[in-house]
Amino acid sequence: MFHNKPISINPIGYVVTQAKDSEVRDKNIISQIIIFNEFIEALNGLEEFSHLYVLFWLDKISTKDLPLKVHPRGRKELPLVGVFATRSMFRPNPIGLTIVKIIKIENNVLFVRGLDAFNLSPVLDIKPYDFWDKNRDIRVPEWWNSLKTEKTSIVKEK
Amino acid sequence: MFHNKPISINPIGYVVTQAKDSEVRDKNIISQIIIFNEFIEALNGLEEFSHLYVLFWLDKISTKDLPLKVHPRGRKELPLVGVFATRSMFRPNPIGLTIVKIIKIENNVLFVRGLDAFNLSPVLDIKPYDFWDKNRDIRVPEWWNSLKTEKTSIVKEK
Repeated sequence: MFHNKPISINPIGYVVTQAKDSEVRDKNIISQIIIFNEFIEALNGLEEFSHLYVLFWLDKISTKDLPLKVHPRGRKELPLVGVFATRSMFRPNPIGLTIVKIIKIENNVLFVRGLDAFNLSPVLDIKPYDFWDKNRDIRVPEWWNSLKTEKTSIVKEK
Repeated sequence: MFHNKPISINPIGYVVTQAKDSEVRDKNIISQIIIFNEFIEALNGLEEFSHLYVLFWLDKISTKDLPLKVHPRGRKELPLVGVFATRSMFRPNPIGLTIVKIIKIENNVLFVRGLDAFNLSPVLDIKPYDFWDKNRDIRVPEWWNSLKTEKTSIVKEK
């Protein structure tokens, strides 16, 4: 029997970025993740990885009156699908999940490329990116394919 | 200026599995994810994806007196590294992140393969697995390589 109750999560740090609004989707952008000093020891050895999962909280998103179906990226020509079949920010628990490249780590500050989080977003967890995360034969819907180019370079590569 | 405060998250569902203890690491195991009825519409179109990220809460893990460094998988021959450089369950916010294969979806029940979550774990979010999550040239530490075989087949493949 499952007992449903809210879960309380304390952030481990937060995001610092100069990018505004849709600029955060620029995969070339370099952001900082400030990890709270109490966790600095937990970063030991992270510099040996090239990539990292960042789990962050989309605290700008209201979850009130949330539609359960959306047109991916708001594009009306794409089918209306459930939010759990999209990576939309507008979801019951707006947890962002993004793979970033580690540029450098200076004490408690991680410099990363490709984090699509707004300035001051709370960070919930960071995890190294794994072989197991990578080696998959995947199948996606037709509509997803039409987003592929868009997702990899919102802003022209420098 | 970042204002640090706890975040309250309501689960979207929970895990049902017959697997006990370390059996959950068997990548062949099939678990169920029960999505609460209020979100059933949000599942629309998910069946067109082969793989899914599951974000769940490791509610059996105490975060009191947590060590910030661990030997990966408790193996003393591996270096002592920060928990953020591992996928250890013992981390400040014990959020599980696992890619699973979708076997079938029946109403609000997702049958998935490879979910290493204990029975009745709260599920925080599910997201389709993306090209962008897959296509990476990655670098990992030497010690991580020694886990590679182990991680892919804890229990012999059937």
